[in-house]
Amino acid sequence: MKKDYIYQQIAQNIIQLIRGGVWKPGDKLPSIRTICQEQGISMNTAKRVYLELENKALIISRPQSGYFVTEAPYRRLPLPTVSKPSGKDSRTLPDQLISKVYGEMDRKGLTLFSIGMPSPELLPVAKLNKCLLQASRELKGSGTAYEPLTGNARLRQVVARRSFMWGGRLAPDDLITTSGGMNAISLCMQALTQPGDTIATESPLYPGILQLAKSMGLRVLELPTHPQTGIDVQALKAVVRQIKLCLLVPGFSTPLGCCMPEEHKKAVVQLLDEHQVPLIEDDLYSDLYFGTSRPVSCKAFDKTGNVLWCSSVSKTLAPGYRVGWVSPGRYKEEILRLKYLHTLSNTAVTQEAVAIFLENGGYDLHLRKLRDTLHTNCIHYTNTITGYFPEGTRISRPQGGLSLWVELQKDIDTAELYEQAIRQKISIAPGRMFTLQKQFDNCMRLSLGLPWSEQLQKKLQQLGRIAGNL
Amino acid sequence: MKKDYIYQQIAQNIIQLIRGGVWKPGDKLPSIRTICQEQGISMNTAKRVYLELENKALIISRPQSGYFVTEAPYRRLPLPTVSKPSGKDSRTLPDQLISKVYGEMDRKGLTLFSIGMPSPELLPVAKLNKCLLQASRELKGSGTAYEPLTGNARLRQVVARRSFMWGGRLAPDDLITTSGGMNAISLCMQALTQPGDTIATESPLYPGILQLAKSMGLRVLELPTHPQTGIDVQALKAVVRQIKLCLLVPGFSTPLGCCMPEEHKKAVVQLLDEHQVPLIEDDLYSDLYFGTSRPVSCKAFDKTGNVLWCSSVSKTLAPGYRVGWVSPGRYKEEILRLKYLHTLSNTAVTQEAVAIFLENGGYDLHLRKLRDTLHTNCIHYTNTITGYFPEGTRISRPQGGLSLWVELQKDIDTAELYEQAIRQKISIAPGRMFTLQKQFDNCMRLSLGLPWSEQLQKKLQQLGRIAGNL
Repeated sequence: MKKDYIYQQIAQNIIQLIRGGVWKPGDKLPSIRTICQEQGISMNTAKRVYLELENKALIISRPQSGYFVTEAPYRRLPLPTVSKPSGKDSRTLPDQLISKVYGEMDRKGLTLFSIGMPSPELLPVAKLNKCLLQASRELKGSGTAYEPLTGNARLRQVVARRSFMWGGRLAPDDLITTSGGMNAISLCMQALTQPGDTIATESPLYPGILQLAKSMGLRVLELPTHPQTGIDVQALKAVVRQIKLCLLVPGFSTPLGCCMPEEHKKAVVQLLDEHQVPLIEDDLYSDLYFGTSRPVSCKAFDKTGNVLWCSSVSKTLAPGYRVGWVSPGRYKEEILRLKYLHTLSNTAVTQEAVAIFLENGGYDLHLRKLRDTLHTNCIHYTNTITGYFPEGTRISRPQGGLSLWVELQKDIDTAELYEQAIRQKISIAPGRMFTLQKQFDNCMRLSLGLPWSEQLQKKLQQLGRIAGNL
Repeated sequence: MKKDYIYQQIAQNIIQLIRGGVWKPGDKLPSIRTICQEQGISMNTAKRVYLELENKALIISRPQSGYFVTEAPYRRLPLPTVSKPSGKDSRTLPDQLISKVYGEMDRKGLTLFSIGMPSPELLPVAKLNKCLLQASRELKGSGTAYEPLTGNARLRQVVARRSFMWGGRLAPDDLITTSGGMNAISLCMQALTQPGDTIATESPLYPGILQLAKSMGLRVLELPTHPQTGIDVQALKAVVRQIKLCLLVPGFSTPLGCCMPEEHKKAVVQLLDEHQVPLIEDDLYSDLYFGTSRPVSCKAFDKTGNVLWCSSVSKTLAPGYRVGWVSPGRYKEEILRLKYLHTLSNTAVTQEAVAIFLENGGYDLHLRKLRDTLHTNCIHYTNTITGYFPEGTRISRPQGGLSLWVELQKDIDTAELYEQAIRQKISIAPGRMFTLQKQFDNCMRLSLGLPWSEQLQKKLQQLGRIAGNL
């Protein structure tokens, strides 16, 4: 593992203190001279510490005054409005728009603000290749044979071990591997619903889940969702008797990036358990927290096996490896049966490679760097949007995850904005993709998973100008 | 590519002539002296040619008489009876038995006559590892990124190219890659049926497909099936108006190993087309022919896009890679939509690795060797069963594929045989796994995908003795 330089270590410590609220926005930081004395480092090193923090837009220097924690950019623009879906399932989804947005992503030279995963530049590609090689050496038959039905034993072991960090206390036998996260969700939904059933979920939500639900003939109840605390628990309570299943992304959901407070998670798990309504917890973003620690997952509060905890490495490590898993609680038999019927086995060699990567401790280092990049991006995006987007823009304050939710003035249509932007080689995800109802027409999702650069900043400014001219 | 020795080349030529019927069972072969003169080789080389053929059980030497083509062992035992399913769907499948057979396969030290794929010893593992390494070097982001929805372009290209060998004339755009063959079948069945629909298929048939159909709420019409020519076309004609879909494995289906004659394939494609009933052609064994050339697939006769041709490398190259594909004809949009909803993308790196393997020409060499091994195994198995199995045993004469179908006397219960055999560390697949009806209780499937050895021969003899004592 490559060691950080001293200045990087100290900068990290200060970042942790800022994130933890020890120094708040506007607070003056110790002078360079003080830092030198306290940390026993040279003037040059101390300067590099502050330069690093400036580059991350976390502090600013004011001539003749010193260094200050950036006025939290989040304070400048208001939060998006709390979604208020009508409670009716309008049964329509803009399939054409979704196909167009995804279809056009392959065009060359686009700036992909629409993409829902980290760009390959942010992934530990060389290390993964080594793990892949090792996996092909170590696996029986070099990975040409089928896996056992529950999936790669080494991966289940290491995922179980990591679950201790968020209170999951899972054993390897509590886990079934899947071909990525959507495959896990799809198995769970197939196991737990029949056509005509109603499910409750967040709003806005990842379109793939909405499309899957519609294709299975399900009714979708979108719940009012706060841009920072997630679904309205009272609203869920009001409909709990009508639903067969609840599906939530409680940790830094896309597109809002909100995280349900622990008390809400606990309440939801208990409520659903009382009514025997299973909860699918799509937990693929929780490792991407911007704060000081990983949020506790709903699964940690599950006493009866009613929570089906789904996750993957598709948003953190290797989307194209298709490595995911589910801890299905008391629904294990049904999930195993469906896995057997539809796919038999996952790809052995990528599952083993990810297990090796996770075992060797490189994952935590990588996650730390990735979180850092995403958080810094979030600040850069927010600053740029504040400066260049039209009057009346609102913006989410994600506490983690990969996306930013931008709400423009009511009369700005982001489907139209998409058309204008794509002509200038900028791709965005219009808000109406994320709902089955008539809402979010003036919203869009921007991906934080791109490497920040002057070029990217210019593209974001350009997007703001296009929006202003609509 | 490693060159064969001269003696191997000549042996291969003679094998082709025997398979092609130029020399028939019982025929005397040219003397060693004649071979020397005709081929311009040494006595030693000529002796090695015949030794090679003896080892493959294709010829026998009779002292003072010379070398003779083995009395085709197939002639000694009668064929299994033609299946006569009742036409009713009994709606039961011995799930417990199936789970037990699959579940116990992982136990150590078992002789797996029950397994449905080639053993790793028969696979080109070292070459595949090289291809995997090359794939991780050449793919964008080393395979960490999602694939386009239709799948790996290189794989679709090379599969399309190979389709010319069996009259498929496919273009890369006619193909969608999938996560193995069962995933292709599952997507097709989901796209084409609703619960309550009826589908027609072979009998006996791979249990995974029967289980999938039942789990989807489908009625399954099993058709009378001849152990050499496959389904009875007239029987299909009689029910064609009742069915929504037909699913066939026309090339060396498991467990029978039969191959539908070209005229039958043509007739079936035309019949189903006239009645607008789509045909799923599960074509994963056709490359494993024992004869002189690959059979033509049904897809070759498809003029209207009504045949969904599914295949994979799971039975020939790397089951654990999960690389398959479908050429869905006019149902492309539905299949793409379902692939997007349930899995998004396949594992990029194994798809690319298989594409590289197929491109580089090593596949044909490997297939030739594998076919040779399987055909030789088939002869060895047949000889051993003829010598050691109880009176009244019948046996299939597979023209290709991975399995042998053995029918014992009516009063021998192969579920009971399974129990007895597993205690002696022998695993078989009892016949009732392969049907939804009350039939095949006295049958079993044996896998040809194991490396032949004295040890294996002894195990097969042992199995025969257990059956004889039941």
